[in-house]
Amino acid sequence: MSEMVLLKLGGSVITRKDSAGVIDSHRLSFLADVIGARQERRMTIVHGAGSFGHPEASRYRIMEGVGAENIGGVYITHSAVRSLNEKVVDALRSGGCEAVGVHPLSGAFACDGRLVFLECRNLAKMMDLGIVPVLHGDVVFDGERGATIISGDQLVQYLGRIMGFRRIGLATDVPGILDNGRVIPVITPQNAGSLTLGDALVPDVTGGMRGKVMEMLELARAGIRSEIFHVERTGDFLDEKPHGGTIITGEGDDE
Amino acid sequence: MSEMVLLKLGGSVITRKDSAGVIDSHRLSFLADVIGARQERRMTIVHGAGSFGHPEASRYRIMEGVGAENIGGVYITHSAVRSLNEKVVDALRSGGCEAVGVHPLSGAFACDGRLVFLECRNLAKMMDLGIVPVLHGDVVFDGERGATIISGDQLVQYLGRIMGFRRIGLATDVPGILDNGRVIPVITPQNAGSLTLGDALVPDVTGGMRGKVMEMLELARAGIRSEIFHVERTGDFLDEKPHGGTIITGEGDDE
Repeated sequence: MSEMVLLKLGGSVITRKDSAGVIDSHRLSFLADVIGARQERRMTIVHGAGSFGHPEASRYRIMEGVGAENIGGVYITHSAVRSLNEKVVDALRSGGCEAVGVHPLSGAFACDGRLVFLECRNLAKMMDLGIVPVLHGDVVFDGERGATIISGDQLVQYLGRIMGFRRIGLATDVPGILDNGRVIPVITPQNAGSLTLGDALVPDVTGGMRGKVMEMLELARAGIRSEIFHVERTGDFLDEKPHGGTIITGEGDDE
Repeated sequence: MSEMVLLKLGGSVITRKDSAGVIDSHRLSFLADVIGARQERRMTIVHGAGSFGHPEASRYRIMEGVGAENIGGVYITHSAVRSLNEKVVDALRSGGCEAVGVHPLSGAFACDGRLVFLECRNLAKMMDLGIVPVLHGDVVFDGERGATIISGDQLVQYLGRIMGFRRIGLATDVPGILDNGRVIPVITPQNAGSLTLGDALVPDVTGGMRGKVMEMLELARAGIRSEIFHVERTGDFLDEKPHGGTIITGEGDDE
């Protein structure tokens, strides 16, 4: 049985930054072809929210928690990311991939902004059957905060750790993690600290990139490597070819 | 804090039997008003599939399991019940109820046709926050069968047992469980046996009704009572008034 692949599609890769709530249909159709042509893979896909959901989440301050005053934001934010998920699933199915959407709101629970549980047996069974589960950053109910936002990157970290994925790739709109415009080929918990402290990592890293690296370093510390590459290199990643991006890896991993 | 209420809306109550994939909008709007006027209740709603999903599930024989030959039926059946769920949530929201849809496919797992896990902490938190989670009979992945159909009634039985609901009501299109056209006021595991064996229960009980009674008897054996009534009496049930229906109760329950 083929090795399981966990592929993250960045929100900024599949939606248009210039207008809220609009997908990048050209990009999605490219990805659908790339993934559809490699259907033999046992694969789970996670996508970010991009211009769907982020504006709503920030208007209602869902990240900080939910109470009586902003409860209405839960439905509105979730509906926005659900609608993106439907479009991603539709696009993938058009490319011949047996994609089915999975919503973290329905099956996950968080505590103080961190995922403490997400049902995974259904995801494993889906992959066994040849279905590609497609999850997304979502509103998740939270024992401390009422509700919070769990990002696609945090989902990748959780699934990578709990389900034992050996191949984890994050497709982004840059060629990798950049240091003064050049891709850093390898980040480890050791050099990440110095890069960050030395401010070298900071100028090229958006909040999103920083969050992404932090989640992937958590995987690296657990001995699980992940790869960050430009979305146009997704086929290379899936084919295990060089993709010119960044590998985030732990001490114990000597590849 | 008010007692938690679990309300099941039968599939045949909210959809039109005469045409597949059509909701009974008059009925849904009535229910939205009844529920919207009683928002102080901490409530979870479960609905059946009715004419959404049942035709698809049976065409693809999802109930018996899923493999390579009928895998395409998973998405089609799930999409049908999802679409009904969206309409139910929309109708409830129009009535002023803070409803949010929850899909068992995303957060549940089954074994040989029976639910073995459904995340409930999110449901409890939603009710704490004043949100009404709205679940539905759905395709659920299954360790033995690949996937199966978990009915709304089975969800009620699971949630009633695991979440400790004390008030469980099933709104149907008949006034209660009938014996020769008359409502049986009380069914217990004891008299149910004799009714069934004596064939008295059989003529008026559809497959759906029989399944419903079996699930509720499982609750009764665990000391949890449930009530089955005509959908027009939903307000009476919520107000704890007589509704003229059937109470299914266990030995230990002397109400």
